[in-house]
Amino acid sequence: MSVHRLTLGDVLDEHRRGRPRGTAVVDGDVRLTHPELGDRVDRLAVALMAAGVGPGERVLWLGQNSFRVLELLLAAGRLGAVFCPANWRQSADELAHVLTDLTPKVVVWEESEAVEKARGQVPLNARWVRSGEEYESFLTGDGRALPGVVSAEVDDAAPVLALYTAAFDGRPNAALLSHAALVAHSMALLHVRQMEDGFTFLACGPLFHVGTMMFTLATFQLGGTLVFTPAYEPVEVCRLIDAEKCTQAFLFGPMIDGLVQANAGGAYDLSSLRFVSHSPEWDAMITVDDSPWCASKMGGYGQTEVGGMLTFLGLGMGGAGYAGRPSPLVHVRLLDADGTEVAPGEVGEICARGHSLFSGYWNRPELNEAKSRGGWHHTGDLGRREPDGTLTFIGPKLRMIKSANENIYPAEVERALKSHPAVADAAVIGVPDERFGQSPKAVVVLAEGASATAEDVIEHVRGEIASYKKPREVEFTDAIPKRGYTPDYDALDERFGGGAYPGA
Amino acid sequence: MSVHRLTLGDVLDEHRRGRPRGTAVVDGDVRLTHPELGDRVDRLAVALMAAGVGPGERVLWLGQNSFRVLELLLAAGRLGAVFCPANWRQSADELAHVLTDLTPKVVVWEESEAVEKARGQVPLNARWVRSGEEYESFLTGDGRALPGVVSAEVDDAAPVLALYTAAFDGRPNAALLSHAALVAHSMALLHVRQMEDGFTFLACGPLFHVGTMMFTLATFQLGGTLVFTPAYEPVEVCRLIDAEKCTQAFLFGPMIDGLVQANAGGAYDLSSLRFVSHSPEWDAMITVDDSPWCASKMGGYGQTEVGGMLTFLGLGMGGAGYAGRPSPLVHVRLLDADGTEVAPGEVGEICARGHSLFSGYWNRPELNEAKSRGGWHHTGDLGRREPDGTLTFIGPKLRMIKSANENIYPAEVERALKSHPAVADAAVIGVPDERFGQSPKAVVVLAEGASATAEDVIEHVRGEIASYKKPREVEFTDAIPKRGYTPDYDALDERFGGGAYPGA
Repeated sequence: MSVHRLTLGDVLDEHRRGRPRGTAVVDGDVRLTHPELGDRVDRLAVALMAAGVGPGERVLWLGQNSFRVLELLLAAGRLGAVFCPANWRQSADELAHVLTDLTPKVVVWEESEAVEKARGQVPLNARWVRSGEEYESFLTGDGRALPGVVSAEVDDAAPVLALYTAAFDGRPNAALLSHAALVAHSMALLHVRQMEDGFTFLACGPLFHVGTMMFTLATFQLGGTLVFTPAYEPVEVCRLIDAEKCTQAFLFGPMIDGLVQANAGGAYDLSSLRFVSHSPEWDAMITVDDSPWCASKMGGYGQTEVGGMLTFLGLGMGGAGYAGRPSPLVHVRLLDADGTEVAPGEVGEICARGHSLFSGYWNRPELNEAKSRGGWHHTGDLGRREPDGTLTFIGPKLRMIKSANENIYPAEVERALKSHPAVADAAVIGVPDERFGQSPKAVVVLAEGASATAEDVIEHVRGEIASYKKPREVEFTDAIPKRGYTPDYDALDERFGGGAYPGA
Repeated sequence: MSVHRLTLGDVLDEHRRGRPRGTAVVDGDVRLTHPELGDRVDRLAVALMAAGVGPGERVLWLGQNSFRVLELLLAAGRLGAVFCPANWRQSADELAHVLTDLTPKVVVWEESEAVEKARGQVPLNARWVRSGEEYESFLTGDGRALPGVVSAEVDDAAPVLALYTAAFDGRPNAALLSHAALVAHSMALLHVRQMEDGFTFLACGPLFHVGTMMFTLATFQLGGTLVFTPAYEPVEVCRLIDAEKCTQAFLFGPMIDGLVQANAGGAYDLSSLRFVSHSPEWDAMITVDDSPWCASKMGGYGQTEVGGMLTFLGLGMGGAGYAGRPSPLVHVRLLDADGTEVAPGEVGEICARGHSLFSGYWNRPELNEAKSRGGWHHTGDLGRREPDGTLTFIGPKLRMIKSANENIYPAEVERALKSHPAVADAAVIGVPDERFGQSPKAVVVLAEGASATAEDVIEHVRGEIASYKKPREVEFTDAIPKRGYTPDYDALDERFGGGAYPGA
């Protein structure tokens, strides 16, 4: 056993000793101290092992936010296994892709038609455990005596968390993050957010997304308190901030406006929240925080593959580049297509090395080789170094649409469009949208002799992928202009009103 | 090359790009930007390589504080070599031990009689470079053309810094710290000290000691500015804080009093210093800082072998234990002699694992095996976990007394003795006991003008710790013989009848 090892389980075991009375998690009626959480994780690890989960095996969560997401992550970590909280709002077809790709040994799920449909589609040698009573019974061995403790020798370089992201070829890939990467990213957040003893985080964004997950893990690393709520609901979020004296929550623009509206009468005391300045009404309700993270309004550049944030505006405040400077545990190069560093002022691909980087995608050996060529992780995003050394994010190397803070990859929507029998070819661009920043617009070529309305096509996409990715508008045309095999997005933007892309 | 690697050289290369205009070091007339520092380090690495320094070889510094200490550390790191800044104020005999033990390939030195004498005593196949002009000439290849760049593939688990410490057998040992350990320890300091962009550290304590070195390295990690001064000189320290707008300096109690005195007239503006509250005069001169590090008055527990600090009071403020809680990158157990964890409230050896731990002592395979048995680093110090989970440092585990099969650590009993108001100093030894094997005996120095009987003192100890640990006998004396800060137990045994120690 290396004297340098630090797994998530080691962190948990430290908190059991160092914070025996501290509240680790709050979720509805559930309230657990660190030792209570530790005991449940130990039992859960034994139950998972008994269900066939060994080193490298996968455990899947299909449900809303829950403290069980943290329990399952930590229990999988005890076994050297990988835990994946997946987007349960996906279509049955998308969920079936996740099941087929990940082949989990245990699936913990909440009631959903799409989940049940996907389960029927994919024959899996897996134990399905319904969240709630069945989960509690599973955790205690279903009444059977289970072996006492798991004592696997887990290396902290082993992957422990898988998050689906990056639909390069139209299908998402699961980014694998190791214990060491998650711990390193948490340290960067502790530093930039100046998280202190007693930090309480309200996980009101989706836990299958790195944005909420990264602060959940940093709070865990610190030994703070995690408050879970199934999903963002403004009045309930206000109530929880007041009741649990939350220090931070997963919030941005429109979500903050929702809270201001929900708390217009001042029914809830939100002053425990030390957060980002947003509007006079908001600033009067909370305590505006001056940590580099809050003062920079959470600016920076990140992606799931780097554990969350790669650069922080708070580490380059007042600089020319909006993405600031890298986390102290990574380093960044801007490389051209040949792997040569570009000069300051020139645009190159943002490439990175360091402690918080992922361990590749699950089950994608060729993609992994390409993404890590030359010993640098290639983010697939473009950046520029300003004369003062700070970084600016330019945009994805391929296109990406950002709508209501969700990433939409044109390739993924195009794939769904093209699966409609009447569609011969399709491309998707982002058009400026007052409410969501951008919204996706489809440009469609119909098959000879076929016919379909815009409504038909949109409805078809809604059945294929998450609803928020569906085009809001459809324009029919004779041919998609191309650059090689991919659509000529610049030409499409010019002709069909595209714009407002992230980083532009 | 691992995509996760982060050596000190990688950090330097990041700063060259990310902070092209930032001041990296100030030392007298020398003032270098990050790119200038980087260029000098590159040249120095080539010069060291040409002088025979390869992976694993040692480079020794014998001199006062200088920016060259940082340059040599970074250049050695480029080569996978180890840099050691040694205490140049040692005697010729002590310096000869360092030379013999470390067998460096290059020694950079400042004028000193002891150094010259030691050099004469130890025949070494080493290049001796006098700091100053000779060093500058060495750095530029002494006029000869040197190969361009060093491109060694250095693993960040490779040791890069050696600091002499821990004279277990009367001779100090060099603790080896890897790139990864130094980076991890720096991250903990960035977090607890809440170091922000623009941090400027004045290295006015000795760089051969981990206390000054750890903040030097954290400032380097952050890309802040390092101000070097040869040694602590109150007026010069005040001048530098004012001139360079230093954010922090290496200072504690008596050093702070010296600055208050030196700046009594208010000649220097020290308000840039964000530091620990100390006295009304001091607090009026500086900006009192509320970061966990400063608010806790730099409390905690540390040693060179853990990279500096293992625990921080600032991570357990208001807790019962004066040492607070561990750094987020380590975990701690209190173990008995058999490696079993002791219960909360019991005294055990402080043992640790985690990212900032050292890689063993140079050239001490047997000691290393003993210190890392069971996969835990054994600090050689005693601690206790309080009911709230925080930690208390009890004292060094120099001796153990075995009485009626119970382990009794003198440091714990001494601590209880010294909490009696009439006791100025105390030491505890084990004396042979027919019935119990050994029994504890106290040697006590009373405070001036105070009086107490043996019974008083024993009764007091009984109220503080477990009854079996109380001394059976008390002898009063004028002074406790010392070795450094700790009692000279051998002398005490001889004078007061100690013996029958376990394993003796």
